[in-house]
Amino acid sequence: MTAATILAEAAAHPFDEALALRTVAEGVYEGVPSQLYWNMAGPFGGVTAATLMKGVLEHPAMRGRPLAQTVNFCAAVTPDPFVLKVVLERDGKSTQHWSVRLEQAGQMAANATLVTGPERDTWNAQPSQPPTARDAADVPVFASQALTAWFSQYEMRFDHGAPNLDVASETGLTRAWLRDRQARPLDYLALASMADAFAPRVFLMRGVRAPAATVSLSTYFLAAPDELAAQDVRPILGEAQPRAARHGFHDQSVELWSDAKSLLAVSHQLVWFKD
Amino acid sequence: MTAATILAEAAAHPFDEALALRTVAEGVYEGVPSQLYWNMAGPFGGVTAATLMKGVLEHPAMRGRPLAQTVNFCAAVTPDPFVLKVVLERDGKSTQHWSVRLEQAGQMAANATLVTGPERDTWNAQPSQPPTARDAADVPVFASQALTAWFSQYEMRFDHGAPNLDVASETGLTRAWLRDRQARPLDYLALASMADAFAPRVFLMRGVRAPAATVSLSTYFLAAPDELAAQDVRPILGEAQPRAARHGFHDQSVELWSDAKSLLAVSHQLVWFKD
Repeated sequence: MTAATILAEAAAHPFDEALALRTVAEGVYEGVPSQLYWNMAGPFGGVTAATLMKGVLEHPAMRGRPLAQTVNFCAAVTPDPFVLKVVLERDGKSTQHWSVRLEQAGQMAANATLVTGPERDTWNAQPSQPPTARDAADVPVFASQALTAWFSQYEMRFDHGAPNLDVASETGLTRAWLRDRQARPLDYLALASMADAFAPRVFLMRGVRAPAATVSLSTYFLAAPDELAAQDVRPILGEAQPRAARHGFHDQSVELWSDAKSLLAVSHQLVWFKD
Repeated sequence: MTAATILAEAAAHPFDEALALRTVAEGVYEGVPSQLYWNMAGPFGGVTAATLMKGVLEHPAMRGRPLAQTVNFCAAVTPDPFVLKVVLERDGKSTQHWSVRLEQAGQMAANATLVTGPERDTWNAQPSQPPTARDAADVPVFASQALTAWFSQYEMRFDHGAPNLDVASETGLTRAWLRDRQARPLDYLALASMADAFAPRVFLMRGVRAPAATVSLSTYFLAAPDELAAQDVRPILGEAQPRAARHGFHDQSVELWSDAKSLLAVSHQLVWFKD
């Protein structure tokens, strides 16, 4: 794929269409949830997370790049237009602290805190072991088009733990190669969204698709912009796993790895499930 | 220890003293950072997390118990009095979404989002394996009194990965039994604090105590109130581990287990380090 092709595709990419914001004032934007990324009841949480991040990235006072984001899903987002309100809460040398509200009909439907900061060269280490998986080319692409809209926007190759509503998985582990179905170079917005691309683990653990929804999602971005640029449009390797489910909630952690075995981002979430 | 003794001790416990808040108006409180939990530059982050939670727990509209909390440490908290502002952002059937600001001199020093909700009996599972460790009684108590004030408030027994500034640890793993030095029955405030009681992993990984600070901390509370009550004043088992350090930041995850091998809470944080 040539650079010209990538740029042309990116300009017309459904993900960028979904994240389109209209600036009303500094830090105030209007947008509409995209039907292209619709889930069962409301937009896919990953796209909501990316939308909240985009408000910060478009703010003129933003320096550096995303480091840590927490998104709280407070209520179902409806298909109606929303207002995004971005506030720089505290501006420091190493970090900027942002808060973002997504409001519909004057009520908060989702909010986020985001820490951004400039890039620094430091000591580095990676105690975590990259997952062992078959090469992406050796894993068949999962037929996701028949499912929800957002799922069909991604090309997923399940090395382990594919969605299967007949068999309960004791571990709840999924390992999959993942990229946009329509090629798009990797960036922080894409990572923020892909961090939520692994279904609630309760589906796997129980082998049924019961009512469940992410309540709170935190993502830590370890990769620098040049590492994301180097990944380009090639698939990344993700692994998702829960620790425990009790009293209507379970946790789950996701690691997103480059194909060069570098940990790009890690996310953690609390998931509500019905019973 | 008899119930009467526990109650008498709890009333005079340094942790409860540190969390004392004076109500100014509904959801508005005043407090002073406690010197009893002072760290190198500012109060111990765990006590700040518990203070932010306490503001919500004291709010008359609060239902249920803490489920997920994210605390952002925006700037060094000074020894001066602070104002805590608690807002119920969205009130739903299964969850309440709260935001909390800790302000000093009109500027936000720390903030939090907290999800609370009523208890429900549901399907449950624990795919995560409890750590294997020696019994608490077989592990010597670490001599923490010579170090920072907050550290001496805890009784820590390091089964693995004790603070040691001479040896670098490749994994950055610590496994330790942990409780308040002065006995205090376990509750959500204590868990919120203990979730941050494991030093920045960069200390272990490099074998030096270099400048480092938590930037953002998320804790998911899986245990019900009766499970915490059953744990009482006995030590809990914690395990802390980083995944990767790059560009001045590393992640670290903490699991907090009951002595009955039930996962009580899990926390994740992003840590800033200097170089």
